[in-house]
Amino acid sequence: MREEELVDELLAGAGDACAQASDGPGGGGVVLGPGDDAALLAPPAGHTAAWSVDDHIEGVHFRAAWCSPRALGRKAVGAALSDLAAMGARPAGALLALGVPKGFGRNEARALGLGVGEKLSAARAALLGGNVARSTAGLRVSVSVLGWVPAGRGLLRGRARTGDALFVSGTLGLARAGLLHLERGGDPREELFAPAVARLLDPEPRLALGETLAARGERVACMDLSDGLARDLPRLLAASGVAARVDAERLPGPPADLARALGETPAALAWVGGEDYELLVAGSHELEGCNDLRRIGCVVPGPPGAVRVSGEFPGARAKGFDHLAP
Amino acid sequence: MREEELVDELLAGAGDACAQASDGPGGGGVVLGPGDDAALLAPPAGHTAAWSVDDHIEGVHFRAAWCSPRALGRKAVGAALSDLAAMGARPAGALLALGVPKGFGRNEARALGLGVGEKLSAARAALLGGNVARSTAGLRVSVSVLGWVPAGRGLLRGRARTGDALFVSGTLGLARAGLLHLERGGDPREELFAPAVARLLDPEPRLALGETLAARGERVACMDLSDGLARDLPRLLAASGVAARVDAERLPGPPADLARALGETPAALAWVGGEDYELLVAGSHELEGCNDLRRIGCVVPGPPGAVRVSGEFPGARAKGFDHLAP
Repeated sequence: MREEELVDELLAGAGDACAQASDGPGGGGVVLGPGDDAALLAPPAGHTAAWSVDDHIEGVHFRAAWCSPRALGRKAVGAALSDLAAMGARPAGALLALGVPKGFGRNEARALGLGVGEKLSAARAALLGGNVARSTAGLRVSVSVLGWVPAGRGLLRGRARTGDALFVSGTLGLARAGLLHLERGGDPREELFAPAVARLLDPEPRLALGETLAARGERVACMDLSDGLARDLPRLLAASGVAARVDAERLPGPPADLARALGETPAALAWVGGEDYELLVAGSHELEGCNDLRRIGCVVPGPPGAVRVSGEFPGARAKGFDHLAP
Repeated sequence: MREEELVDELLAGAGDACAQASDGPGGGGVVLGPGDDAALLAPPAGHTAAWSVDDHIEGVHFRAAWCSPRALGRKAVGAALSDLAAMGARPAGALLALGVPKGFGRNEARALGLGVGEKLSAARAALLGGNVARSTAGLRVSVSVLGWVPAGRGLLRGRARTGDALFVSGTLGLARAGLLHLERGGDPREELFAPAVARLLDPEPRLALGETLAARGERVACMDLSDGLARDLPRLLAASGVAARVDAERLPGPPADLARALGETPAALAWVGGEDYELLVAGSHELEGCNDLRRIGCVVPGPPGAVRVSGEFPGARAKGFDHLAP
């Protein structure tokens, strides 16, 4: 299997999301797609490029037993697009850098491309190229994404101020519930756990919320929750030079029966769970209810990055996830 | 060693090339550097973004015994920037996605950052962020680069036409000579081989040549030579729907004594050698001498991608390099 054959299969799998040069300029400004030394994108007038990269590595971020090539394509692209959502940017395209182990052939490349293409198409973004190399270990997918945000409207982490309300979108801890279920050998199709497994394998970047916040043009601080609130909230606070109080009873955790079946509480799952890819926002109290933002606390003076969690809370295990922790 | 500590060391090593948000807009349009969910770049007026990604994987693209973390930083960034040179784009910045094995600590991260920063600074580009994850195998560096090319002036592969002259820049086969020397256990400091080893470990992207060709605004086809002329030339020709004749005696190979010491000929090294990162250009005969372009043949009608090499030539081993070949 040669490098170019795998690339061809991947692009074929991605189908409509694979922008060809002959398509000409599209909504995201795509001038030139895969097949040359680089992709070309024409910036929309008055916009700034937002640009990020995210990795998924077998044995670290996913297990092949749970995550088919197609699911991996969806998960890797969903997670990467979440960084653009967190900046308020509209996605334009993605580049894939794949490291493939020996058993990875045509069928796997096409399935991965299918998942990648599905997720990019849903965000109206294009697959613009990439790179395939032999991996000496397991499968590895590095997704680089580029989007456009109105100039001066990018959503930064460092803009929280004392007195701001603190919000999160959606439900937190669902992906962790799915992970715990699968780690314990649970059936991914079991009805109680199916939404949690779906969240883990197929994260939904909050692109509409990010674009809405950028379009409002108000001062907000924003980031996406990839490593869990317990680890990510201090990062946003530290970047802003402030502290926060969080009300554990306001944390939007998974349903109580789901948590109970795992021997957890909804609040604990919501606090430490990673990979939800919801947005964390600090700003005006009037943002409550903007899309599905829910208030979980407030920004206070204090040591930068410090968090006090009030209410009933199992804080001992509240560490979030570190990809390099032993 | 936590993920964020390694990132901090890497950024510290990169020094001046690490654009901080506080620096404000720079020459490449950098609005926001590392530390947020994405980097932000303001496009220069009338320019298009050129965007590419390139991988370096231990055991596939380099061996740790030959390539220190600092050298790897220089090699990985040099190779990635070469894709921008091939498009005629001026580099703005890079994102790094690192997979690090267990032994990779602070010192290694700082040294890698140093090499990355040196190479980016030389190209007046900035390190704008990245990602660090545990590698279950060896070290892996994925470099995503973004640059700006005047709108409509990007140098594409598909623009060669019958009657064009065919050019390459610099010397071909040097990196392969360095590789053969090291694979045979040679001393990298041995005087005869030092330039070849330097080319292998520290490729020099032909950015000035690419920018010059884009600024001229003439029709040219262009690509960079990463896998060797024997593999890359057919790609440019296939993209253009043409064939070529190459004169083996015109191939700018390494010095004869260097080739002889390896049991090779300069022409054979020039034909199959990969990783030189010189530019391959098809266009007007008047380009001869533009920067250091040297004519090696001409574009002819024929099956797309076909090449006939005339002159004395050891064609049997003329295969170039496939990263996935067994």
